[in-house]
Order: sequence, then C-alpha cells, then structure tokens
Amino acid sequence: MTGPRPRVVVLTAPGLAAPSQLDAAAAELDVEVEVVQAEELARALPGARALFLWDFFSAAVQDAWPAADVLEWIHVAAAGVDSLLFEDLRRSDVTVTNAHGVFDRPIAEFVLASILAHAKRLHESMRLQREHEWAHRETTRVQGQRVLVVGTGGIGREIARLLRAVGCEVRGAGRREREDDPDFGTVVRSDELAEHVGWADHVVNATPLTPQTRGLLDGAVFAAMRPEAHVVNIGRGASLVEADLLAALREGRLAGASLDVFGTEPLPDDSPLWDAPGLVASAHLSGDVVGWRDRLAEQFVANLRRWRAGEPLTGVVDTRLGYVPGRDSGSGSEGAS
Amino acid sequence: MTGPRPRVVVLTAPGLAAPSQLDAAAAELDVEVEVVQAEELARALPGARALFLWDFFSAAVQDAWPAADVLEWIHVAAAGVDSLLFEDLRRSDVTVTNAHGVFDRPIAEFVLASILAHAKRLHESMRLQREHEWAHRETTRVQGQRVLVVGTGGIGREIARLLRAVGCEVRGAGRREREDDPDFGTVVRSDELAEHVGWADHVVNATPLTPQTRGLLDGAVFAAMRPEAHVVNIGRGASLVEADLLAALREGRLAGASLDVFGTEPLPDDSPLWDAPGLVASAHLSGDVVGWRDRLAEQFVANLRRWRAGEPLTGVVDTRLGYVPGRDSGSGSEGAS
Repeated sequence: MTGPRPRVVVLTAPGLAAPSQLDAAAAELDVEVEVVQAEELARALPGARALFLWDFFSAAVQDAWPAADVLEWIHVAAAGVDSLLFEDLRRSDVTVTNAHGVFDRPIAEFVLASILAHAKRLHESMRLQREHEWAHRETTRVQGQRVLVVGTGGIGREIARLLRAVGCEVRGAGRREREDDPDFGTVVRSDELAEHVGWADHVVNATPLTPQTRGLLDGAVFAAMRPEAHVVNIGRGASLVEADLLAALREGRLAGASLDVFGTEPLPDDSPLWDAPGLVASAHLSGDVVGWRDRLAEQFVANLRRWRAGEPLTGVVDTRLGYVPGRDSGSGSEGAS
Repeated sequence: MTGPRPRVVVLTAPGLAAPSQLDAAAAELDVEVEVVQAEELARALPGARALFLWDFFSAAVQDAWPAADVLEWIHVAAAGVDSLLFEDLRRSDVTVTNAHGVFDRPIAEFVLASILAHAKRLHESMRLQREHEWAHRETTRVQGQRVLVVGTGGIGREIARLLRAVGCEVRGAGRREREDDPDFGTVVRSDELAEHVGWADHVVNATPLTPQTRGLLDGAVFAAMRPEAHVVNIGRGASLVEADLLAALREGRLAGASLDVFGTEPLPDDSPLWDAPGLVASAHLSGDVVGWRDRLAEQFVANLRRWRAGEPLTGVVDTRLGYVPGRDSGSGSEGAS
C-alpha cells in the first residue's frame, strides 16, 4: 500500500473508549486515525480509506454510505457481520474483514459449559439451594452423548473438537452432506435439519445469520427433537424461532434450552423467555472472556499492518455469503459464524 | 472357593430395593442371598461368608460385628469406605472391596462442570435471569487455567485427564512429591497444601476421608489461595473445614466454592452454607449418573463370580490406609476416593 498517509476512521459509541493500541499503531504505520461516533460518521467518511467498526453492533454504516468515496476496507470487531451488511456494500469493491478466530475457543468452552450444566442439572441444584432443599437426583454422563453442531465454520469446528475431547459423539450440519469431515466426521444438510435432530441429545446453533439461517431452528425442528434434548444458541437470536421454542418448552416436548443470543437484545424485561421452563438465558457474552477487547484491537492492528504493507488481509468476509468462507467454501459449506 | 453353598447377606434400607441382578447371580453362582435391613444384621451375620453393603452409608456393621463369625468379605457399593471402617474390622482378616472405578468418570465430569460454571459465571447469570436483568459481563477462558487436584487415586486421576483434555494445566497433591506422574506431571505434598494452593485457579478435593485428610482444607489453605480462586469438594465433607470456608467467602478472600459433600448430610435447613456468597451446593450426587445403581450391582456380581471361582477380587481396600492403593501404593500415594 503506497500513496499519501491514509486516514482510518474508528467508529466507537458513548461509553466505549477507542482501543489504547491505536495511537502506537498510527505512529508505527504512518496512518491518520480519527475516532468518531455514529452521528459523525457521514462527516468523517469522505477521504477515509479504511473504517474500523469498534462499535460492532452499529448499523450506522448504511446511513453514511453515500459519504464513503474512497473507502477500501471495513474491519468489524465481531464474528457476525449481519448487522453491517447491506446491498450497496455487497455490490461495492470494499473489502470486509471480521474477528475471525478470536471467539472460537471461548464460545466452544461456553457451549461445553452449557451442555455440562444441563447434564449435571446445575441450574436445578441452584434453585433447590435457594430453597435450602436437599434433593439427591441422578445426572447424566456426557461421555457418549450426541451433539449436532449446526454451522461448520471456525466456531462450529472448535465446538466439535472440544466436545470430542470430552468424549461426546459429534456431527455437523452444513450446506453439503459428507462423511469425511476432519472435525465432524459426518456432516448432514442444514436445510434438512428436522430429519437429523432426532439423533441428538444436544443441538447447538453456531451459524452466522444469513437468509439461509434465519428461522432455521423452528417448530418443525423442535418437534423432531427428542423430548429429553437440549438446544444451545450462541449464533444469532434470529436463527431460532423463539415462539416455537417457547411452545416446545412449555408443552414439555423439549427438556432445555441455553440461549446466549436473542431476537431482540437486550432481552426485554417482559419477554416470556426469561421464565420459560428449562430455559437458561445469558447476555450475549459467550465469547467475551477477560482480555477479549484487547485481542480484537490487536487483530485489527495486525490487519492494518498487512494493509499498509500491501499484503493480503486475514478474515475476509464473502459479502455475498455473509461470512468468512471456510475450508469447504468451494463446495459451499457454512463459514465461520 | 469350594465347600458348601455360601450365604451372602445384602444390607439394604427402607425404600431401597435390593438389586434385581441378585436372583440370577445367586442361581448361577450357587450362593444363598439374604436381604436384610440394619436392625436384622446381627441376626443374619452368623454363618454368612460375605456381606454386600448395598446401603453404603450404613454404619450398622460395627454394631453387628460380634455376630460376624465366618465372614470373609465385605463389598461396599460406594467409593468412600470411611463410614464402614472401624478398628476391629481393620484388625480382622475380612477383605473389604469397594466400587472402585465406577464413579471416576461421572465425578470428573461433575468437576469439569463446576469449573466451567464458575469460569462462565453461569450461576450469576441464573440469578440475573430470575430478575429479568440483562447484564453483559466478561467471563474467563478455562484453557490454561491451573487446577490443583488433591488426591491422586482413581477419581483424582480421571479428573486430571479430563481437565487436561480441555486445556487446563493440572497438578496433583498426594503423599509423595514427584515430577513424573503420568496423569499429573507434578505432584506436591498434600500435607504442605498451603504452600502450593497459591498456584491454582481451582483447588479440587478428591481425597478419601482418612485421619490424614480430615480437615485438610482449612483456614490456612484458604488464606493461601488467590482471592479469585475456586474450591471444589467431591470427596467427603469432613475433609474441608466449613466454618473456615464460610469466613473466607464472606470476607471476599475466596471467589467461589462448589460443594457436593458436607460434614452433615443432608445439609440442615438452617446451615449458613446454603446462602454463603459464591457457594454452590449440590446433594452428594456428583457420581450418580443414570444407571449408576445397575453399574454398582453388576460390579458386585462380577466380584462375587471371582470369589466363587477362587480368583482375586478387584477393588480391594487397604483397611489401614482407608482406600484402594493406587499405582504408587508402595511409596504411599493417595488412593482412590
């Protein structure tokens, strides 16, 4: 990358400080960094060649898009880019990169925690504890339990590897069925999910939110699951039809659900999901281990260094697919979520 | 084993049915099986050559001991034999066997569940959920966290292997220090615990209850732990000084404790432990996965078959040590708990 000192815009938000790593990076890499909030974005974009979405949930880019006259690259400090993508961006030549890889291991650990908590009935024990009630109950062994991981991108693969390490039997669900996947072995088609979920003790959604995955876990899927099964969602809330899940839980057709993501976030105070039987809710935190913001900032700086050196960027999103294509991109598998 | 058809007494309790496997085993192995409850034990023991403590928490054997005139073998359907052992039994030639191995994997999974629940703040999320409160918080990565497993018997070893499989750094604490243990690598001395717990993010008690392990986790040990550390007890309640733990939790000197065992069980309704900050209580169920009673009965029948064939029994307890000696028994390591 040559030419005059480029300007990089960093989108932040009230209460969200820009990364401390940026000053040193700007000096080292000879770039001008301008930190703005959403309402200043349209003013700042003209002449800017790169945009760093540090406020990764912001949907401000679409509104300011006409002002992006020389923009080459947008980096999103998140795994899911669903809140960024819009048609004009897809059609443009702007490169989009994401936080590929940063969340894989933390989210996999969170999924394992959710599966173990369900198997060992930890939430039920906590309710009993609150009531000072001693009640011996039988738990289940996770070794040998079957887990269907929907989404065969980086996060889904790390989930599969970690679950296999503790002795679970794992399958994947992706765009193309196969029997020889290095992490999953068997991969079934995610557009035929209802035909395959009956096999599983746990069904984990790890897909990016795209038109293909919106509403993927619906009433038909829940009806095909075993009544003692458990659903985990660490992808995006809109990939799961919450009303259908609620009905299945209330009618005892499904034993449990661990949801870290919801159709509306924050989950409204009056949502019936909070009190649904067997439902465990957390506040979209599955990947956010101590130090996560530093990792995200460092990842951006590393890509900024590549950009200035004219090297290929990492974590490049296929804006048509809506995610970073994985090892099977040629044949159309699910990418990283 | 030859001679006349031997009589085997099975100790059960009100509400505890004798294993269904016994009838077929009695016929196959030509033994007479008599099922009794505690108050009938002294009457049933004369002439009995084996005793199966299906009610494994019973302390009735000591009272009935003078009636044990030809007893050769006691099998306990539990890992811990602390409630059985007494001085006259130790001095006798009666062989004691236990449920060696049956609980290793279920308990290891429970320990992993407890560690992950702590790292991912699942109990805190559940409290927030009850209040319909959305609160994003940072969690921690268990990969690389340090776990000191006190007790290097079969259960402690399975815990170590499972925690290593998910990327934890593990050390053991046993009777003899060493650096070359196949499961733990480093083993420190459990009688110098306070010198070693500062290293750990999690300290897990997996010792059998013996005079050496009674009160092992005390105020000095808690004071030496890091304030963000977490204690797990799946051994016996009396190995941990509950009043000292309570003080450490209340004073914020320790972040959390997951206790599945207590000095008094069931834990009394008015125990201050129920509401101690950061304390997670469960009802002595860590090893009791669905099917556990069948596994225990099958294990006894397998030993009964060996006994009738004159073969060595498995899971033989060293009644002087109070547990089944492990691979390092010659040098005095902790055995299975």
